Amino acid sequence: MSPRVTALSGYPEYLPAGRIVEQRVLDLLRETFELHGFGSLETRSVEPLSVLAGKGEIDKEVYAVRRLHADAETEAELGLRYDNTVPFARYVTEFAGKLNFPLRRYQIQKVWRGERPQQGRYREFTQADIDIVGADQLAAHHDAEIPLVMLEAFGRLSDELGLPEVTMHVANRKLAEGYYRGLGIAEPAGVLQRVDKLDKIGSEKVAALLVDELGLDTDTAAACLRLAEIRTPDTGFVERVRALGVSHELLDEGLAELAAVIETARAYRPGGVVADLRIARGLDYYTGTVYETELAGHPELGSICSGGRYDSLASDGRHSWPGVGISVGVTRLLAPLVAAGWADASRSVPTAVLVAVDDEASRPAAIDIAGRLRARGIATEVAPRADRFGKQIRYAERRGIPFVWFGSGEVKDIRSGEQVAADPDAWQPPAGDRRPAVRLH
Amino acid sequence: MSPRVTALSGYPEYLPAGRIVEQRVLDLLRETFELHGFGSLETRSVEPLSVLAGKGEIDKEVYAVRRLHADAETEAELGLRYDNTVPFARYVTEFAGKLNFPLRRYQIQKVWRGERPQQGRYREFTQADIDIVGADQLAAHHDAEIPLVMLEAFGRLSDELGLPEVTMHVANRKLAEGYYRGLGIAEPAGVLQRVDKLDKIGSEKVAALLVDELGLDTDTAAACLRLAEIRTPDTGFVERVRALGVSHELLDEGLAELAAVIETARAYRPGGVVADLRIARGLDYYTGTVYETELAGHPELGSICSGGRYDSLASDGRHSWPGVGISVGVTRLLAPLVAAGWADASRSVPTAVLVAVDDEASRPAAIDIAGRLRARGIATEVAPRADRFGKQIRYAERRGIPFVWFGSGEVKDIRSGEQVAADPDAWQPPAGDRRPAVRLH
Repeated sequence: MSPRVTALSGYPEYLPAGRIVEQRVLDLLRETFELHGFGSLETRSVEPLSVLAGKGEIDKEVYAVRRLHADAETEAELGLRYDNTVPFARYVTEFAGKLNFPLRRYQIQKVWRGERPQQGRYREFTQADIDIVGADQLAAHHDAEIPLVMLEAFGRLSDELGLPEVTMHVANRKLAEGYYRGLGIAEPAGVLQRVDKLDKIGSEKVAALLVDELGLDTDTAAACLRLAEIRTPDTGFVERVRALGVSHELLDEGLAELAAVIETARAYRPGGVVADLRIARGLDYYTGTVYETELAGHPELGSICSGGRYDSLASDGRHSWPGVGISVGVTRLLAPLVAAGWADASRSVPTAVLVAVDDEASRPAAIDIAGRLRARGIATEVAPRADRFGKQIRYAERRGIPFVWFGSGEVKDIRSGEQVAADPDAWQPPAGDRRPAVRLH
Repeated sequence: MSPRVTALSGYPEYLPAGRIVEQRVLDLLRETFELHGFGSLETRSVEPLSVLAGKGEIDKEVYAVRRLHADAETEAELGLRYDNTVPFARYVTEFAGKLNFPLRRYQIQKVWRGERPQQGRYREFTQADIDIVGADQLAAHHDAEIPLVMLEAFGRLSDELGLPEVTMHVANRKLAEGYYRGLGIAEPAGVLQRVDKLDKIGSEKVAALLVDELGLDTDTAAACLRLAEIRTPDTGFVERVRALGVSHELLDEGLAELAAVIETARAYRPGGVVADLRIARGLDYYTGTVYETELAGHPELGSICSGGRYDSLASDGRHSWPGVGISVGVTRLLAPLVAAGWADASRSVPTAVLVAVDDEASRPAAIDIAGRLRARGIATEVAPRADRFGKQIRYAERRGIPFVWFGSGEVKDIRSGEQVAADPDAWQPPAGDRRPAVRLH
């Protein structure tokens, strides 16, 4: 390749061991999702720009796609997806007649956002979503089910791979909107968008925005922020909101919905969720429950798993398909851990056994041994060159391959140096050596 | 979603059961590749246009990507990858210092080509590649290893899922180029490109192109086509090429390389490969062995698995990383089979058991039962509504979920109607019902 190779900022790529970490995490997510009856779906990477537009702050980050030699007038205006929810809503609308509702799907795909590349922000990254979508209606208990499925997945990431604990922060847009309306604010969406910046710019600056940009008086702005201060591990938030003395029908609805989610989640995952009225979410399509998730000890990662309820995203005018879902920012979670050495794999290849080659004439015998080991599920490669054995052992060592098999009928654990006679039709590696061990610290 | 939903031609999307078929095929490919010591890698979806350009016919099919609100002058010119080989070569060049060679990797990712959408052509599709790349050199025996790994994968697709048999057609560019040069042709690449169209337009038209566009005389054009007629299941091709009376050093080299591949592959997979000198491949970067693969009974699919040896694709001027690889056109293979009903799954969801709900008050008990079944790896969902049981059974039926669990402590096989008392901590579904059964006809 003659053109100079340049790293592109914002497009992370893993080395082989990093990819093994990512695969293990994705496998575990998939397994958990499928155990809960979520089926995999993938959508095309592009959508008409009209589908991608009008969903809030994200609009300005869309990537347009066009054939280099396109005829500008005949080609549809397409853009790359920036999340898995909007394309899924389009998919549901397009294929509704062939789908069974409620539909439970997971979707693990890359998304693209033209953000300014910086710490924790990527232009291409992997999201792992679960969603449940109903036809015209969707029961409220799914708002509690979604975080429980995800907390079970994080529980396994913690138990099996060592990931720190997570806490899911839950709020409700109806609650916030009702509260703002109860304060006499006509456009609550503007308040939500600014309150969403609390973590980034702090409460003083948010208050200033509310006054300067939305024209709220200082007291009303302060009242908005008082709601955002409420955070309780149980349904105590209801009383604290009531104590603020605001009343509105939508507020009552939101309080009841959030109380139900917190109560159910606490019953199954004590300590896994908190009601946190600071949570707003930047996307416009959420209509009720909203979720964010914090990784213990890693506030710098921001929310690693977010989502919410969307009652009107998927609609064709006659029917609507309300949904609730949540999305793990897999790259946002793992790329910094891998880069910092907090996530690693015990080897950089799937191979458990390297079959050494005495000389090129005996390569067929080595291939035969490898085939017999593979037939019993043991990942095996044959040494690429009939070098002296020391060099072949180093080939294994550099990759972390634990065992080297010799044509003499012996297998060596190159970590301990122990070498024993073994039968390729019967020998088993220790269970822990069958595949690379992955640790997240 | 207000904008009208329009299907985009050339961007296939599966319904849930189709995706289950695809997942099973991808899982089986991955498992086979990892058993052979290939590690997973993914590259970013975009490359600088300079990296994507200059690789042959594909150039005009590149999709350019640009932020909608980009500043035209400061943004790199990027395009979506059209295969997994060119980005992998770039990756190798970029990260060479951190990789161990020979590097064995597989890569299962989407690629994009702005082809005119038509039968069997897609604008977005999944490719599953394996490649072995060396530092400055790569032993010839890998040219025989690559088809054997892939034939093992296809053997499993055949044995386990019922896919028809495949035959791999192997040729060698040195052989063809040497032969053309031996005929006195100065630009063999032009001949290769036109011979590559043999299957599409037939030998008469190819001969006409060779005469009209390249200025060959009729006899030379006919001699080019005589080479392309040679197809043997063994090394018989060597003698048949010799009989054409052309000689060139590069021809000898190509004959020896191809003979070695065919001989080795025949030893391990009798009948799996044929030497077929019609095979040319459209991409410019191949330098030796080239592969194509035919699915028995499905000539309309074209080659479902193609690749070859590329000695100079990855190079930074000082070093080069020669490689050999092959790529399954997963979408090209499966999308038509799924669309025609030749590929199906026994159910459209991963779920094996639906736990019925007596009334909303007993939902926690149903959630508890579901959790105990999942703890033993049984995919389970809880009925979304406490409808009458007939309706809940229909919920399962429509999705193909084989078992419904009742709060009374009984489980019903809804296919046979058999209902038995069962313990959620001990009951097991038959092994064949644990996950959806997939068949490719």
